[in-house]
Amino acid sequence: MSIIVLGTVALDSVKTPFGRRKELLGGSAAHFSMAARLFTKVNLIAIVGSDFPKRHIAFLRSKGLNLSSLIVDKGKTFRWEGEYKGDLNSALTLNTELGVLSVFKPQVSEEQRKIENIFLANVDPDIQEHLLRKMHSPELVGLDSMNYWINTKRKELIKLLKHIDIYVANDQEAKDLSGEHNLIKAAHRLCSFGPKMALIKKGEHGVLFYAKGGFIFSLPAYPVEKVIDPTGAGDTFAGGFMGYLAKKGRINSLRIKKALAYGTVAASFNVEDFGLYRTSKLAPGDLQRRLIKFKDCFSF
Amino acid sequence: MSIIVLGTVALDSVKTPFGRRKELLGGSAAHFSMAARLFTKVNLIAIVGSDFPKRHIAFLRSKGLNLSSLIVDKGKTFRWEGEYKGDLNSALTLNTELGVLSVFKPQVSEEQRKIENIFLANVDPDIQEHLLRKMHSPELVGLDSMNYWINTKRKELIKLLKHIDIYVANDQEAKDLSGEHNLIKAAHRLCSFGPKMALIKKGEHGVLFYAKGGFIFSLPAYPVEKVIDPTGAGDTFAGGFMGYLAKKGRINSLRIKKALAYGTVAASFNVEDFGLYRTSKLAPGDLQRRLIKFKDCFSF
Repeated sequence: MSIIVLGTVALDSVKTPFGRRKELLGGSAAHFSMAARLFTKVNLIAIVGSDFPKRHIAFLRSKGLNLSSLIVDKGKTFRWEGEYKGDLNSALTLNTELGVLSVFKPQVSEEQRKIENIFLANVDPDIQEHLLRKMHSPELVGLDSMNYWINTKRKELIKLLKHIDIYVANDQEAKDLSGEHNLIKAAHRLCSFGPKMALIKKGEHGVLFYAKGGFIFSLPAYPVEKVIDPTGAGDTFAGGFMGYLAKKGRINSLRIKKALAYGTVAASFNVEDFGLYRTSKLAPGDLQRRLIKFKDCFSF
Repeated sequence: MSIIVLGTVALDSVKTPFGRRKELLGGSAAHFSMAARLFTKVNLIAIVGSDFPKRHIAFLRSKGLNLSSLIVDKGKTFRWEGEYKGDLNSALTLNTELGVLSVFKPQVSEEQRKIENIFLANVDPDIQEHLLRKMHSPELVGLDSMNYWINTKRKELIKLLKHIDIYVANDQEAKDLSGEHNLIKAAHRLCSFGPKMALIKKGEHGVLFYAKGGFIFSLPAYPVEKVIDPTGAGDTFAGGFMGYLAKKGRINSLRIKKALAYGTVAASFNVEDFGLYRTSKLAPGDLQRRLIKFKDCFSF
């Protein structure tokens, strides 16, 4: 089954110990899509400005994404500038220019409204809700957010969580929104807001998955020796995870564990080069091969 | 096959968000032994002062440990006082009294010198070397250290590593001794000092294992909802890990992965209560049962 992703398509400028790149094609929806497209048809819901390079649109289309609801509006494309130091575990945001993102009202075609698998990547919770209301029969809805919205639109976010199946967060966001230090307690509390499942991404430390009723899955990260640029790793994880589940249809615990593993492996490719360089070149077989190596890291 | 552990037997005073305890039986060798005894006969090499409660000796003996080389010397037992806050991920050391530890020259019987499995838990590298020289036929030697020795006896430690098979460290120690941020690079560099294998403990984030030639294993931690007192979790991990390998004899990659899982599970029990309260009551079946639950957290 196909999937819808709502999020950002951005121009990212990034500096890491391995170099700097200016105005790379990026954004949460773009990173998500590069992984999810390896499993299913991806419908990208986003907005860019009139300054957005046409070659980027052609590039996204060449990757098989449905761009019929990608709005090109007057104004500037959303830009993010950040820097990673040392162990590359956290980004220092140097600059954010919202541009057309500040007036974004997601569009979706009549055909797209029937799609059952939905991922609301990190944008304003009001925009996330706006899209979700338009959907006819959401079956599996994932949502990612960020500290900025947790702090400024906490009420809206928590209200929205009632309609979400899987809340996706990094460890700090999970702690902040739940008020709990321990990640299992945090996940438990997050699920009390509505979601049936919470997926907590821990960067180089892997992932913790919690489902109502107390199911807990935990995977280490795939060991990557040379992390070049972690930008978008979390969205890539979500793309592999949600993409695999959308392909499979009904979920069960085995499929969730495999989806977590695909997300992990997809994210491990993402960090190996700047922007979308690595993930945009992947074929499904690349994921398969690394999944086997990954499994060998812990299976006994 | 039996195992020797050299380390501390201490009186620990600890404060965590869940309470405080004074002069608990603790120390690296004691924590290690409580896990290793579930797999094999443990020979404990340590020193305590004349103030060491006799009931603690009786208690250790009742757990099946060979205490024939536990020295009881004039003077005070080694004491450590620490506090954990918030997420309990790192201890704040409030006080350390070396006592008899400052004059410790490990003794070992003629019979014990033939033991092939050896763990040198965290003490002065000179003391670790002193014991290792006495051993007739070391087959598998593990060593743990700490930042204090990395900073003050770096040269001695690195020299000693030439004779070590498995270097055991937490993530910060691994970074400090290797000078590398990335843990895989750190492990690679640590192995260049001599050890064939490096085992990096990451607390609530699990463990990374690296063997020369590039074998990498990685396991998440066992999810524990209520961490009461993490003191000694790393030593307990090492006890489960080394104990299992000692029981099995020859090592191979499958056994190493199982040993890592046993270490993980043993450590997860340790943090569920103060001191040795939880691990001293364990039977092998408790480890087995939790191992099965642990495996279900990530196997697919």
